Amino acid sequence: MRRWNGWGDDSVHSILNTAALQFLQERVGHTTAPSDAALDAVTQRLPPGRLPTHPKLSTDNEARVRASFGQSLPDWLRLRFGHIDRVVDAVAFAESAEDVREVLAFAHTQQAIVIPYAGGTSVVGHLTPPKTDRPVISLNLTRMNRLLHLDRSSQLATFQAGVAGPDLEAQLRAHGYTLGHFPQSFEYSTLGGWIVTRSSGQQSLRYGRIEQLFAGGQLETPTGPLTLPTFPASSAGPDLRELVLGSEGRLGVLTEATVRVTPLPAVEQFHAVFFPSWAQAETAVRSLVQQRLPLSMLRLSNELETLTSLTLAGHPRLIAMLEKYLGMRGIKGSKCLLLFGVTGHGATCRSALRSARDIVRQFGGMPVGKTFGEKWKANRFRSVYLRNTLWEHGYCADTVETACDWPKVETMMRRVEAAAVEALARFGERVHTYTHLSHVYPQGSSVYTTFVFRRAGTFEENFNRWQAMKHAVSQTIIDVGGTISHQHGVGKDHAPYLSAEKGPLGMRTLSELVRQLDPDGIMNSGNLGL
Amino acid sequence: MRRWNGWGDDSVHSILNTAALQFLQERVGHTTAPSDAALDAVTQRLPPGRLPTHPKLSTDNEARVRASFGQSLPDWLRLRFGHIDRVVDAVAFAESAEDVREVLAFAHTQQAIVIPYAGGTSVVGHLTPPKTDRPVISLNLTRMNRLLHLDRSSQLATFQAGVAGPDLEAQLRAHGYTLGHFPQSFEYSTLGGWIVTRSSGQQSLRYGRIEQLFAGGQLETPTGPLTLPTFPASSAGPDLRELVLGSEGRLGVLTEATVRVTPLPAVEQFHAVFFPSWAQAETAVRSLVQQRLPLSMLRLSNELETLTSLTLAGHPRLIAMLEKYLGMRGIKGSKCLLLFGVTGHGATCRSALRSARDIVRQFGGMPVGKTFGEKWKANRFRSVYLRNTLWEHGYCADTVETACDWPKVETMMRRVEAAAVEALARFGERVHTYTHLSHVYPQGSSVYTTFVFRRAGTFEENFNRWQAMKHAVSQTIIDVGGTISHQHGVGKDHAPYLSAEKGPLGMRTLSELVRQLDPDGIMNSGNLGL
Repeated sequence: MRRWNGWGDDSVHSILNTAALQFLQERVGHTTAPSDAALDAVTQRLPPGRLPTHPKLSTDNEARVRASFGQSLPDWLRLRFGHIDRVVDAVAFAESAEDVREVLAFAHTQQAIVIPYAGGTSVVGHLTPPKTDRPVISLNLTRMNRLLHLDRSSQLATFQAGVAGPDLEAQLRAHGYTLGHFPQSFEYSTLGGWIVTRSSGQQSLRYGRIEQLFAGGQLETPTGPLTLPTFPASSAGPDLRELVLGSEGRLGVLTEATVRVTPLPAVEQFHAVFFPSWAQAETAVRSLVQQRLPLSMLRLSNELETLTSLTLAGHPRLIAMLEKYLGMRGIKGSKCLLLFGVTGHGATCRSALRSARDIVRQFGGMPVGKTFGEKWKANRFRSVYLRNTLWEHGYCADTVETACDWPKVETMMRRVEAAAVEALARFGERVHTYTHLSHVYPQGSSVYTTFVFRRAGTFEENFNRWQAMKHAVSQTIIDVGGTISHQHGVGKDHAPYLSAEKGPLGMRTLSELVRQLDPDGIMNSGNLGL
Repeated sequence: MRRWNGWGDDSVHSILNTAALQFLQERVGHTTAPSDAALDAVTQRLPPGRLPTHPKLSTDNEARVRASFGQSLPDWLRLRFGHIDRVVDAVAFAESAEDVREVLAFAHTQQAIVIPYAGGTSVVGHLTPPKTDRPVISLNLTRMNRLLHLDRSSQLATFQAGVAGPDLEAQLRAHGYTLGHFPQSFEYSTLGGWIVTRSSGQQSLRYGRIEQLFAGGQLETPTGPLTLPTFPASSAGPDLRELVLGSEGRLGVLTEATVRVTPLPAVEQFHAVFFPSWAQAETAVRSLVQQRLPLSMLRLSNELETLTSLTLAGHPRLIAMLEKYLGMRGIKGSKCLLLFGVTGHGATCRSALRSARDIVRQFGGMPVGKTFGEKWKANRFRSVYLRNTLWEHGYCADTVETACDWPKVETMMRRVEAAAVEALARFGERVHTYTHLSHVYPQGSSVYTTFVFRRAGTFEENFNRWQAMKHAVSQTIIDVGGTISHQHGVGKDHAPYLSAEKGPLGMRTLSELVRQLDPDGIMNSGNLGL
């Protein structure tokens, strides 16, 4: 059963080992265990829904609670403290584009707002019902999960857009194909969600971001269907796919998507390299990506993330061996861990691996084989469960990410971390911050920072701290010159910062676009701040 | 001096050898030499401009004629026959974004229409002044040709958008970089033109289309500036760059563009392979691109294009040797020529070359070394001059291109060629058609067809024939399921077919976008049909 107030399946537990707990206690302080609100108590206090009955709609209170929150820290706080200020009035389950159209039409008659829902994994408030007097319907798309067509010749697969990562890959695997889109939320997040939030998978270096994988599809807008045909490329005017990508449910409901797939790779390996300093490691990674080696992933942790990962990993003997090995080779004390992947044909992978090792050595990197990479791969969708465990130990975890050109990357990382530390210091609290580059490009890199800090006693205290930190960090991202999101999207949490990069005319353009396709505001979830 | 009524510099002449001329005479008939209108006669007959004097504006008649036509066949016919129905009223030369803003403001006071002009290489009527009572200003951007900034760390170069291909590459080469964008129009076409028409270069397989190269820039719209920041990637809402790409001058004037550049490659080679049949050749090319080999170009000619190229090349002894060599290896009679490029680091190129040769042999291909590839490279921007020579011999040449998914590629090629033959047969004329795949993708391919047919005696006869052929071919593209343009854009010639792929809602969306950024229609050139 999926957790209603945390990440993932409730039979899966992540363990925080003693050394890791001590490490956190030293860095941010001791905590007390929380006493969370119970689901029963929450559902019993819900106000009644404000919609007439309709065969497509469920007004079950548990369904309403589950539909109204994502995985942002404010959403967690609301659920854990039972601070349920707003929930949707009803949940509709669509099985087809026709169902979607029916729900949109019903919403129109009721002046209701429709929020598309599938994986429920948003970390930026996409699913939070807006402040409004209008009734709100959560449109659940998870039953729309079938592979509709596979064109082997063009390597195109058409799916219903509600299909979740594991189901999508399983259906493709049965035919010998993969999409290769693996965001950390893969266990629950869905194809449609990836598209409308411009998601990026861990191996985007090989497979591309979802923008490159999305070939066409069908959007049901309140003013009618928008069909996006699949062409390999086109110069016929502005690309309408690019309006659907990033539309975050504001323009309509994506019901069908055709994506570019590839045959399952013959070889896939993840290798680890340790660097004695960030400067050397960053230069090496930039060199690897700018030489356009056919690697499938480059993921570089800074000093504190490397230390944190090794501490959390909980294999003291293995780590001691590693420290000894690296120490003999001149890497003592703080170090940076690079994981890189090779995926594809054997010969290409071997050649890429050889070249990658040569390059990292030029910058002081020490390759240590596949052990760490294999562990990372085994836990790639498990590590997100740690957030539950941290909470149970009295710690909040949150993340922020951006992307910027190379000259700004180190400054961005240092200043984002510092901004969070400074923001929580104002509350007399410490925050443990660490960062990695998760997606690198010849032009620059994403910068992904994690924050761990102590839970406070009340919802309001926690929310205020989060808000102060979020604002400080977001403003820093803008000041340094990054995008407000590289992979999580805008939702409501990033909406106040969107105009800094789109500009006044860009924001007006987007507003008009929304107004045109959704004149009655049926899709007005508040996402993108539009 | 640039030709006023044909392609390129008037000191450059292409030669049609006797065998090639006989070949054409056999295929479409004998012709008589044309008697073209003289520039003097044309400029003397021009109506006076309808604008008051302004320091930024020239009303010189030759400048007005030169600014009013591109390289579409209708534009050629107008110039060659002196059938000058519409010309711009004045030409403004901008040297800065400030100049652009000044011209837009002046146009606003005069209710004038502004058409941005740079390379003048459009083959789909982008530059043709619209039918309107409003005065029209051609805004010449060719003086905006400077490299403004080079960020080596991010491999980003910022140019004024009017820079032409050779100037752009020369300025980058001085720093050891290349953009690698080489459309056939490279000699004159400009960065801004590439962006607003979604251009594709011959080596897009390595460098990407202009969509992938365009990182950000500055658009001066009639309602104010739109600044597109450079991020390596972003999930912050719809991507506004994708509205500027393909906007064809309808949203404003691109004054500055930042592009992704790469260090000059160490190695570049073009190799030729002959195939005994189209089916084998197409399968080989699809296999090469789907295996994601690091090639820089794949260009496959069909049987008739191969025959035409060999005949035009005019090296009878070399061709005889080739025929003998191929014949001994079982390739007799009709055959298909594939040119492929390897570009980059030595080791990567060697490995890609080896793999490519292995794959083509699996499909019956016979690699014949670099001779044909080198000749192609030497003439890559010269071959377009042949159109002048054909005209002087009494032949019209025109091209049409599209892109579609792989299952449709052969049908598209055959049916586009047949549609042209059928359309001209109705006039009792034959047309020599041939096709190549110029840009291939894992998903599908572009299909690029050339038509050569006899010139008729009058403008109207030629125009009617062209129109019948253009319509038949465009309708075929839509019926088979291709985009109305893969690389030339929409302009006016393709505008009637745009709604077939954008759909009614898509067209409304684009119209509203234009209306919002250009409420007074200052940029209303008629491009995109909006």
